[in-house]
Amino acid sequence: MKEILIQSSSHAYKVIIGERLRFELKNYLKKQYSSILIITDEKVGSLYLSDIRDTLSNENVFETIIPVGEQSKNIEEYYRLHTFALSNGLDRNSLIIALGGGVVGDLAGFVAATFMRGIDYIQVPTTILAHDSSVGGKVAINHELGKNMIGSFYPPTAVFYDVDTLSSLSDQEIRSGYAEIVKEALIQDSAMFHSLMNTNLSEMSSKKLQHYISFGIHVKAQIVENDEKEMGARKYLNLGHTLGHALEANLGYGALTHGEAVAIGLLFALHISEDISKKDLGFHTLYQWMDKNNYPLSIDKWDSEAIIQTMRSDKKTTNHQIQMVLLEDIGNPIVRVMKDEEIRNYLNTFYRKLVTK
Amino acid sequence: MKEILIQSSSHAYKVIIGERLRFELKNYLKKQYSSILIITDEKVGSLYLSDIRDTLSNENVFETIIPVGEQSKNIEEYYRLHTFALSNGLDRNSLIIALGGGVVGDLAGFVAATFMRGIDYIQVPTTILAHDSSVGGKVAINHELGKNMIGSFYPPTAVFYDVDTLSSLSDQEIRSGYAEIVKEALIQDSAMFHSLMNTNLSEMSSKKLQHYISFGIHVKAQIVENDEKEMGARKYLNLGHTLGHALEANLGYGALTHGEAVAIGLLFALHISEDISKKDLGFHTLYQWMDKNNYPLSIDKWDSEAIIQTMRSDKKTTNHQIQMVLLEDIGNPIVRVMKDEEIRNYLNTFYRKLVTK
Repeated sequence: MKEILIQSSSHAYKVIIGERLRFELKNYLKKQYSSILIITDEKVGSLYLSDIRDTLSNENVFETIIPVGEQSKNIEEYYRLHTFALSNGLDRNSLIIALGGGVVGDLAGFVAATFMRGIDYIQVPTTILAHDSSVGGKVAINHELGKNMIGSFYPPTAVFYDVDTLSSLSDQEIRSGYAEIVKEALIQDSAMFHSLMNTNLSEMSSKKLQHYISFGIHVKAQIVENDEKEMGARKYLNLGHTLGHALEANLGYGALTHGEAVAIGLLFALHISEDISKKDLGFHTLYQWMDKNNYPLSIDKWDSEAIIQTMRSDKKTTNHQIQMVLLEDIGNPIVRVMKDEEIRNYLNTFYRKLVTK
Repeated sequence: MKEILIQSSSHAYKVIIGERLRFELKNYLKKQYSSILIITDEKVGSLYLSDIRDTLSNENVFETIIPVGEQSKNIEEYYRLHTFALSNGLDRNSLIIALGGGVVGDLAGFVAATFMRGIDYIQVPTTILAHDSSVGGKVAINHELGKNMIGSFYPPTAVFYDVDTLSSLSDQEIRSGYAEIVKEALIQDSAMFHSLMNTNLSEMSSKKLQHYISFGIHVKAQIVENDEKEMGARKYLNLGHTLGHALEANLGYGALTHGEAVAIGLLFALHISEDISKKDLGFHTLYQWMDKNNYPLSIDKWDSEAIIQTMRSDKKTTNHQIQMVLLEDIGNPIVRVMKDEEIRNYLNTFYRKLVTK
């Protein structure tokens, strides 16, 4: 078992990583809550909800299930969860447990952030991808005009990462999760990047998995501690996300998983970075690794103009100018404001590279 | 002109009180915003929107109007404002100006708190009542199951109180605003309470008005600085609000103004406090003053059971027990958890006192 302590602007909280944690959750609750609401999705709920419920058998527990997928992060589901919480008498001294991946964490976290102006919540991530979203306190729902447009910075009370739950992940979910770890390596650690590139995702031991997840959380934790509100270094965590988010939005949420879209976004960032620096920054290596591990590498409905439009409405833009995170070297990210024209050229050369490779 | 500096957990901000401030707003903006969105309601907008717009003539300004009244603090209007902001290209470096009373401030503040996870906003209160809501960072919308149930603690960047705008208030709005000042006097200052009780609202000079508003803001500021998240002393500010909120909800928002409902709630708190302490704590004095100043003192559809149900779902309850703020003396509030049975008896004796007085 590992514990990582994270200092947020409002409080410190622990990320606990280990096996069988979901059976021990109760021992870690620091106070007596008047009631507990578990929010999970259909798939995770069918696998692990009863385990969590059993450990809380002496508590006043309610549970509610959301549909699987990004589509649940909408304003209607958000309001329904408030209605459920109010109808069941949750109060300011209640706790929300977010059991699931990033979608559950973002939605349940935003409900906790705004229920009676904020109550405690605990993240119990069940995907690799959620190692990223469960740390740092970003919670949100989507708006039809953009992803994560309505939300808060609201750090959890604790994060319980039971790695056993990762054994139920599909290959696609594993791929999706590793994209963020690759991103964290590219931002901070060249050796880790090359170690990852030598790893076949289908032959991963549980120990190695824990190792990589801990690495990812450490990178994330370090950055968000220094820049919780994303004024500076936290922007680096958006490496791969400017294109990634635009692809997700334009192809319809669900066509690509978040991590698959981010992985293509990472390739795009490396494509630009290599062109500017005239150095090998790992484009070819990453491409090969993605190919070997069955990441989607071709996109049917590529529309550069539509992509640029969506990129321009990203939260990270200021004055409608697109900001890209790029690399000067592996482990050395920079933020660069780019003109639409530059982006357009790079999108076109990138797309040609993908289809001809 | 007066300036009061308020220290919130995240930043310090100024409350500036004076005449003609709405024409000078631009001089006080501390940074260059990429765009500015003014949110106001139909009534205030028709009076003061053009003044504000004119002072910002060199800025990239958008404006949107909400319907007058508490009913606008709903999830649909909240989402519409996000849509408006996104459609007009607001970004993280944009500013929202809330021009209006408490409804505009609460709604626009909550939009600012959650738009792209939080952007700057400025309160420009135009009612006496808003002296209270514009300080302290409580922002929220209503849920059909309760008032202010969805919200955040999100302090403004500044508060500009142009007292000239108060000249357009109706008698009802003046009454409504004074209820909170009476509350603040009851919590903290017996001499101020008696001074207020000797004041006829229809014969108030602008100077006296500024004096009372400054007093109210000082009391509020002092309490919220020490207890932003309402763990202790901030609860005292709920004096009169437990019944007040329940009356508003049960009679339908709009039947009584917020302040009128709070004024009846203050009477109720004094009714209980006098019964427990066996002291004169001002029930009779306040009743006479309310009567002289045309506060509503009779309620047609009194239903003690429905009131108790609503009180129990208030945000201040824990484990479904009603918490009342009471007075040991004027200037000396306490919080008391009360049984439903006690509340029921007091509601019945209070109602009889009102109808027979």
